[in-house]
Amino acid sequence: MKITINEVVTRDGFQLENKIPSIAYKLNLINDLIDAGIKKFELTSFVHPKYVPQMADADELLEKVQRRSDVTFSGLALNEKGVERARKAKVDELNLVFSISETHNRKNANKTVFESMDFVKKIMKDESLPVNVAISTAFGCPFEGLYKMEQLFPVIESMMEYNPNSIVLADTTGMADPRQVEETCYSIKSKWPSLKLGLHLHNTRGMGLANVLAGIRGGVTDFDSALGGIGGCPFAPGATGNICTEDTVHMLEQMGYETGINIDKLIAASKGLEKELEKTLPGQIMKAGKTTDIHPA
Amino acid sequence: MKITINEVVTRDGFQLENKIPSIAYKLNLINDLIDAGIKKFELTSFVHPKYVPQMADADELLEKVQRRSDVTFSGLALNEKGVERARKAKVDELNLVFSISETHNRKNANKTVFESMDFVKKIMKDESLPVNVAISTAFGCPFEGLYKMEQLFPVIESMMEYNPNSIVLADTTGMADPRQVEETCYSIKSKWPSLKLGLHLHNTRGMGLANVLAGIRGGVTDFDSALGGIGGCPFAPGATGNICTEDTVHMLEQMGYETGINIDKLIAASKGLEKELEKTLPGQIMKAGKTTDIHPA
Repeated sequence: MKITINEVVTRDGFQLENKIPSIAYKLNLINDLIDAGIKKFELTSFVHPKYVPQMADADELLEKVQRRSDVTFSGLALNEKGVERARKAKVDELNLVFSISETHNRKNANKTVFESMDFVKKIMKDESLPVNVAISTAFGCPFEGLYKMEQLFPVIESMMEYNPNSIVLADTTGMADPRQVEETCYSIKSKWPSLKLGLHLHNTRGMGLANVLAGIRGGVTDFDSALGGIGGCPFAPGATGNICTEDTVHMLEQMGYETGINIDKLIAASKGLEKELEKTLPGQIMKAGKTTDIHPA
Repeated sequence: MKITINEVVTRDGFQLENKIPSIAYKLNLINDLIDAGIKKFELTSFVHPKYVPQMADADELLEKVQRRSDVTFSGLALNEKGVERARKAKVDELNLVFSISETHNRKNANKTVFESMDFVKKIMKDESLPVNVAISTAFGCPFEGLYKMEQLFPVIESMMEYNPNSIVLADTTGMADPRQVEETCYSIKSKWPSLKLGLHLHNTRGMGLANVLAGIRGGVTDFDSALGGIGGCPFAPGATGNICTEDTVHMLEQMGYETGINIDKLIAASKGLEKELEKTLPGQIMKAGKTTDIHPA
């Protein structure tokens, strides 16, 4: 079975970093990741540099990144201004996001959930670019607790009217457990079989890779992940690390899933990232090595 | 469904620590863990203090620990001398171990696999105590690579003749993937339905909790884990952290499994352990908090 990785290291990964990598570093990293076999990137977000200075180079990054017909670059926007910038920067796909938590949505987008959903629908109505809709805190919110999956159904229903390219359920603060992920994804895929459903998972409570497998059992084949397992949300307490790209790919490949990604090249890129960020990254394969590495006795 | 945790923090957990906790600390910790609801402990190992100084207090620990009719204390032994000490110390259950890797078994026990298996059988033949047989590097060895599950079958067959209390498959260096764990456990449980099969998992490559769930799907309900996720094997490269007790319990309870363990008390004990060992522990729930913790907006 083929599994698609959407690499978010330059977006979700960098947005919490104190040391902001240069655009030259970002461009090199992207090239290395493409060379490793990654075909999809959430490259950046078009947000105000006052709030997220790590993304100030969004427009320039899209301008300078080498385009390839087999690689998709998406960009995230939270408002009209961001969408305009993303269009002008010629993203391949437009990522829109809202949270089903009023509290988190207010902190993240300064809007009510209704206002954000309305904005997303308005954009989708006339947009010529493929639009991916991410639903933040889809499984639970640190301010409001765990959600029941039934709360997602009307939200997805209302999005489906506008024919999104995909809907991505984001476990923004790593609260979902594997049973919840499997049941939620399975139910959604049963109700909307044609929907391309993605998962954006965090490993905050150690359940990240278990949730990847739960998602696969629930019918999902598209996963966001970040090199080295970095990242988090600046507006959600305890929102540590995205699931780690190389750890995810390592597990999936060992299990017989096909990612099309070269794990050695990922590990090399992750070690380079560790040097660049000057701190230990959460990724485990970069430290422990692959299971196929044989040590001398 | 009920899941039983066998706490190994005072054995596998402490055996790699440079700072050796005092016997007074160990006794307090065990009491705290019993108070949290843990009913099974692999308390210590009866090995030569020259090789594993962290276990030098094994006999005294068994003498001083408060016995309870509802709590089981087991002790690990690698040779005749160790078994004698364990019997004299009145362990409730005797744990014997060998590795299916010649290289690892030689390093760990200074015997061939055949010699170790022979020793285990000899002990089981006349032993009045319940004997748990742990098979180290059951899924793969860092010196020899991944194993096929078929390699385990004759080994288990030969042990079953002596009616062990349980057989525990140990993924000593965290090499197993969830597919391998599920298939292996399912096959073994199918061949020997009456066998109590346990899993001893490490989170070396991030697959620890995914492997717990894979084990449950394969028919296993008994898992070793260590508070704070500490531990490893001194004779296997890269053998970091056991699966973390509180992270495991947190996930299982959230999914609806019953462990009978109070997660808050576990977290308190784990934070105490972090102070005692004067270093950051791998456990994630102790840092991120439970999913049911609601943060003020």
